[in-house]
Amino acid sequence: MRTTVGIIGAGPAGLLLARLLHNAGIDAVVLESHDRAYVEQRQRAGILEQGTVDVLRAAGAGERMDREGLRHDGIELRYDRKRHRVDFPALTGGRSVMVYAQTEVCKDLIALQLKEGGPLLFEAEALAVEGADTDSPSVRFRHEGREEVLECEYVVGCDGFWGVARKAIPAELVRVFERTYPFGWLGVLADVPPSHDELVYARHDRGFALLSMRSPSVSRLYLQVPEGTDAGDWTDEEIWDELERRFETEDGWRLERGPITQKSVTPMRSYVHEPMRHGRLFLAGDAAHIVPPTGAKGLNLAVGDVVTFARALSYRTETGSDALLEAYSETCLRRVWQAERFSYDMTTMLHPAPGAAPFDDRLQLARLDRIATSRAAETDLAEGYTGFPLDDGRVSPSGEGNHGPA
Amino acid sequence: MRTTVGIIGAGPAGLLLARLLHNAGIDAVVLESHDRAYVEQRQRAGILEQGTVDVLRAAGAGERMDREGLRHDGIELRYDRKRHRVDFPALTGGRSVMVYAQTEVCKDLIALQLKEGGPLLFEAEALAVEGADTDSPSVRFRHEGREEVLECEYVVGCDGFWGVARKAIPAELVRVFERTYPFGWLGVLADVPPSHDELVYARHDRGFALLSMRSPSVSRLYLQVPEGTDAGDWTDEEIWDELERRFETEDGWRLERGPITQKSVTPMRSYVHEPMRHGRLFLAGDAAHIVPPTGAKGLNLAVGDVVTFARALSYRTETGSDALLEAYSETCLRRVWQAERFSYDMTTMLHPAPGAAPFDDRLQLARLDRIATSRAAETDLAEGYTGFPLDDGRVSPSGEGNHGPA
Repeated sequence: MRTTVGIIGAGPAGLLLARLLHNAGIDAVVLESHDRAYVEQRQRAGILEQGTVDVLRAAGAGERMDREGLRHDGIELRYDRKRHRVDFPALTGGRSVMVYAQTEVCKDLIALQLKEGGPLLFEAEALAVEGADTDSPSVRFRHEGREEVLECEYVVGCDGFWGVARKAIPAELVRVFERTYPFGWLGVLADVPPSHDELVYARHDRGFALLSMRSPSVSRLYLQVPEGTDAGDWTDEEIWDELERRFETEDGWRLERGPITQKSVTPMRSYVHEPMRHGRLFLAGDAAHIVPPTGAKGLNLAVGDVVTFARALSYRTETGSDALLEAYSETCLRRVWQAERFSYDMTTMLHPAPGAAPFDDRLQLARLDRIATSRAAETDLAEGYTGFPLDDGRVSPSGEGNHGPA
Repeated sequence: MRTTVGIIGAGPAGLLLARLLHNAGIDAVVLESHDRAYVEQRQRAGILEQGTVDVLRAAGAGERMDREGLRHDGIELRYDRKRHRVDFPALTGGRSVMVYAQTEVCKDLIALQLKEGGPLLFEAEALAVEGADTDSPSVRFRHEGREEVLECEYVVGCDGFWGVARKAIPAELVRVFERTYPFGWLGVLADVPPSHDELVYARHDRGFALLSMRSPSVSRLYLQVPEGTDAGDWTDEEIWDELERRFETEDGWRLERGPITQKSVTPMRSYVHEPMRHGRLFLAGDAAHIVPPTGAKGLNLAVGDVVTFARALSYRTETGSDALLEAYSETCLRRVWQAERFSYDMTTMLHPAPGAAPFDDRLQLARLDRIATSRAAETDLAEGYTGFPLDDGRVSPSGEGNHGPA
């Protein structure tokens, strides 16, 4: 089997890349180890940055998103029983975000791919990437009981944190940057209209809580829990009671309860793998970087990566120059590190760490107070939340990036 | 001996307070444990915020400052061998800072006090504050070999971190917030014109360095050193060599060397004592809070405290209401915590901590990169550096503060 771009993984990164390449007239094959139902149902992110929304629309994958997604013009920060709304369009010159679940993005992209795109093989498990530093890399994979080889000009690993693509980069070239957090999120889906029409990020001495939603009738709620917590440790009633405590306000805001339909614990981790390219192997999304979910950056970073790759490959097709492909890692990492920073800051501002010093609690409150009282600090947050630019124009086609100030 | 306001300590806080009260027609006595030469020569801060400059001028203590001080409209951030200037007036609507050493502020205020003000007793060592929660507090002190009592209506402890005033607040009412850092600053004074006309804050993998100045012919330079370093551990040549490495740029900037006339190590600490008032005893400056020197906030916070006290007491004189005096601690602490946050952020952004994870290094670079590329983030820094407002108007005379968002 032979193609121009072999894509490992049919999460949002791999699926969107296939779509972008299709639109650019470049052949691609997608290999996905799970079956279709699994990919379409796995609960992940739900917030699309302005730039992600724009990319999906431009790729012809925005129709249902625009019909069913919920445009959000702000978030609420809640602390000390008080409420502060951050108004995104007012602070960022009109940018906003879209609440539209990753599951729905995947469904839309899968439907498009199967209708118009190249091969998308489910239950095709990538085993190894070979010849990454040659002109003809390949992916060995198992499909319908047989081992096969996909011969490519380029391979893009969109196969997540546990994927095989990353392993094809020689260890001596790799630097890993990592941070773990001594807490996780207990997340629930509940069949009840969200109690607030925008996301609520609540910092409480008992821990962080997040009110989000999947639709006008389905709430998505999270509680900070100690590392190692099992979702089964909490009864539904205990979850609602704890959410109520952490969201409490002095103005009598009320949390509506409803049947909980799903419960799971998400660990929190920051992780960056450098470089993101080795020869003709490119890493995108969780295969190269993980952020804690607090800033809602994971899916959006993956989109940035594949847009960067698709542009770089189109540039090569048009000009014959490899410059943008060679700059891929540097271009992506600049944006990745801004998202890592933002996610780290949102996480550490809102989650009291177990055993934290009283000084740290006061620091969290001072940070929130600063955002609530300084337009500059609030704008900084709003810019980060609605998304860092996909291309800041600072990498020239010569491949020379300017990683710092001039 | 009897007065309206007993002031313990003739550092900048105590001396400025004496001046403000004198101007308001309120009697005060200042007790200082050291002699005049000591107070006038002890090297401390050197950066006055816009608000501090305004207060000194309004108090009639700005004449020599305006003649000899150096107005600075920005600072330079240096990292990855690159340079980024932060332009204060452009970002803050015209605010700037003044380079004018604490020693000079003290000399000016001492001269004014001795010429026009009330009693200022040197070598008068405060032993204890008594009756803080009564209507007639007093300060027991030793002067010229005799123990005496200063009877007051109010006592203000401007006697620094090691002072006695704080000890008069019952332990069960006190909360202390503290953070230490595993490094300090080796500071030198050198007889050489500063190599740059504004302060340079340099983040380097080998450690932080700061270029500052006392005058157009005297440089003030600092190196991050491990905790517990003795100034004698470093020869002058080693200091210059290390400064040169940390300040190095890709554009060939040069550090000029000169004779080092003074060398000392400053420890780094964050510390807040709550509350800042007990009955008729008020704490101001280092007696209540310490910041690491990175943000140049220490002296400026002290100024904010005594301005708040002087206003509150004048308000009582005019209206008979104790409301502002009662709100003193809350009013000050809001500003204190913003300065603690700012100083902590400047410190942790610029100092690689010993044993820090590679993730933390990248986070520091991402923070600096963010400031260099986002006007919002840069404005946030410029606002913090030039100073938080002395009075944000959010504490009503009823004494009910609004500590959070509306």
